[in-house]
Formats: sequence, C-alpha cells, structure tokens
Amino acid sequence: MQLLEERIRKDGKVLPGDVLKVNSFLNHQLDAELLDAVGAEIAGLFKDCGVTKVLTAEASGIAIACFVALHLHCPALFAKKSKTSNIGSGVWSAKAHSYTHGNDYTMIVSKEYLSGEDTVLIVDDFLANGSALRALRELCTEAGAKVAGAGIAIEKKYQGGGDELRAEGLRVESMSRIASMDAEDGIRFC
Amino acid sequence: MQLLEERIRKDGKVLPGDVLKVNSFLNHQLDAELLDAVGAEIAGLFKDCGVTKVLTAEASGIAIACFVALHLHCPALFAKKSKTSNIGSGVWSAKAHSYTHGNDYTMIVSKEYLSGEDTVLIVDDFLANGSALRALRELCTEAGAKVAGAGIAIEKKYQGGGDELRAEGLRVESMSRIASMDAEDGIRFC
Repeated sequence: MQLLEERIRKDGKVLPGDVLKVNSFLNHQLDAELLDAVGAEIAGLFKDCGVTKVLTAEASGIAIACFVALHLHCPALFAKKSKTSNIGSGVWSAKAHSYTHGNDYTMIVSKEYLSGEDTVLIVDDFLANGSALRALRELCTEAGAKVAGAGIAIEKKYQGGGDELRAEGLRVESMSRIASMDAEDGIRFC
Repeated sequence: MQLLEERIRKDGKVLPGDVLKVNSFLNHQLDAELLDAVGAEIAGLFKDCGVTKVLTAEASGIAIACFVALHLHCPALFAKKSKTSNIGSGVWSAKAHSYTHGNDYTMIVSKEYLSGEDTVLIVDDFLANGSALRALRELCTEAGAKVAGAGIAIEKKYQGGGDELRAEGLRVESMSRIASMDAEDGIRFC
C-alpha cells in the first residue's frame, strides 16, 4: 500500500536492535486518517469472507482494528495482555513472547465475545516473528472460531514469521512488507 | 446522546462495587459504528476550538480517541501506563490512581508529540472520580499545551469528578451522564 510505505519511509526511524520506530503515526501518536485508509484497504481484501469479528491485541492494534471493523460493519475485540498465567475460567487464553520487551505474557479474551459461531479476521500493527499472531490464532482455535486470515500494517518479512504462517495455510495480507532495513541504508520494501 | 444511552441501558451490566460493565461494546469488544457516532458527536462540539491533538489513555480510550481525531482531522495520542515512576527524560509524566484496580500508576507521553504549540482535546471512555482526566490534563500543563476541554463517553455524575473539574474551569462534555445505578433498579441518566 503506497500511502503507508511512503509514510514509513518519511517518518519511520530505524533504531539499533532491529527496531522500526513508527511512534509518530502508528502506535503512540496515531494518524487517524492514514489508519482509516489502511483499515479500508484490509477490509476490502476480506469483504467476501463472512467476517463476524475483528480480533487484535492491546494496545497498539486497537486503532487499526477499529477502522477495519468500521469498514466491515462488525465489532472489534481486543485481547488483553496479562503477566500472570493464573487466568479465570471465563476467558480464552494463549501465551506469547515479546522480543521487544524480552518477556512472556498471556493474551486473554472473554468467552462471551468469541465462539464457534465467529469468523475472525486478526489484525495487528506489526508482524515480525509471528508470536503475537500465533497467540491470537490460538484464542480462535480454543473458541472453535474460524479464522478468515490476518491483516497487518507492517510485516518485517525478513524475520520470516509471516511466511511460516502462510506455509501453514493462514492467509496473511500485509499493507507494507519490509525486505531489509538498517540505520544507514534505510528501509527497502518487497 | 440518545444512541449511547439506549445502548448502555440495553447492554450495560451493573455489578457489585459500583461497576458498570460495558465490555460488550465499549472497552473489550468495540462497536466501531457506535464509537464512530460518539466520536463525531464529540468532534462536533469542539470543532471551532482549534484542536491540534486528541489525547487519551491506553487502552480503553484509544478507540473513541481515534474516531474523534478522524472527525477533527488531527492526530490522536495515547498516554501509556507505567507501573514504575522511574521514567526517562524524554517523556511528560503524571500520576493517577485506579479505583477499579486499587493501584497507582504513571501516565507517560513522549515529549516529541506534545508541546506548547498544541491545543488538546482530552478524550476517555469513563469519567468517575476524575483521577485519569486530571493526570491527562497534567501532562498538557507540563508540556505547556492549551486544553480545549474533555469529551467523555460515560460520566458517572454521582461520583462528582466531572463537576469538580467543571468548577475548576475545564469544559467537560459527556455523551451520557449517569445520575445513579444499582443492580435492582438499573441505570438512571441525568
């Protein structure tokens, strides 16, 4: 998606430790008009899939998920992150690992809002090694929900998580795919 | 706002401990179309105030803030919550207290995104005792930013936080105002 790639090129900052900082428009400050356009694009790709729910993870996935849900005319649902694995019986839960923060955490959603009746589109801001996306998919599996696929704003394609999930049969649509990046040469898209 | 009050009456659950559970449409599962309408309403009230930034707190304020920002054609910014008060020099920070969780926390925003150039509209899902709203206002004060006011989805008016802030001169616009609630008699709006 050209609009998003241009913005990443213009305002994204490549930091040491393989970090792409997009805090100015994607996950601290939010460019609502850009995210609405990204949401419309993702929604358009999955419009014939019978999606009943858009699932994301707090906090940085919420904005995009809302706009996708608006364009698909269905609710969004955000998984909450918990540091304990001591979770009540009223929720579906799945473990994930944050490479950014170097810790494990548990994602939870209330059983009230995810069931075998649902067809789910998973949405997130980033896809790198795929740990968060796998956990979100696991929540759907536990609930017996069908997964239509995943819509991602920025895929770090060189980290391989997206292609592994595609090889497992998951439809993954990324609005920008980074082939390589470093502080000197900048960002190269696929 | 009639649409929101009707939805609270229909799907809100009054739980022990003065809790109004609106997880099915406002802060776990999100009704994007309803939140877009709430966002448009808040934006309309502040459209002539020269707002340059919509400020909220993660995670449950993000959805409404995005829609307000979309309708005001400006960015949204969400304050992150930190459990430590040991914060770096690159951020504005303010302490708040969660009565729901019974703990103190620190809200932080990057200095890059909030400055004396900004006119800020603060947005949040709930206003009860006003602790979160005060902390968000303090972030603006630290940054030297002007505060145009606050747009709130649900004000628990009987808790008094909103009226205290109004008495201090803050413009607070709430899309629904609860006069009283309990599990037996239900919810009464002002």
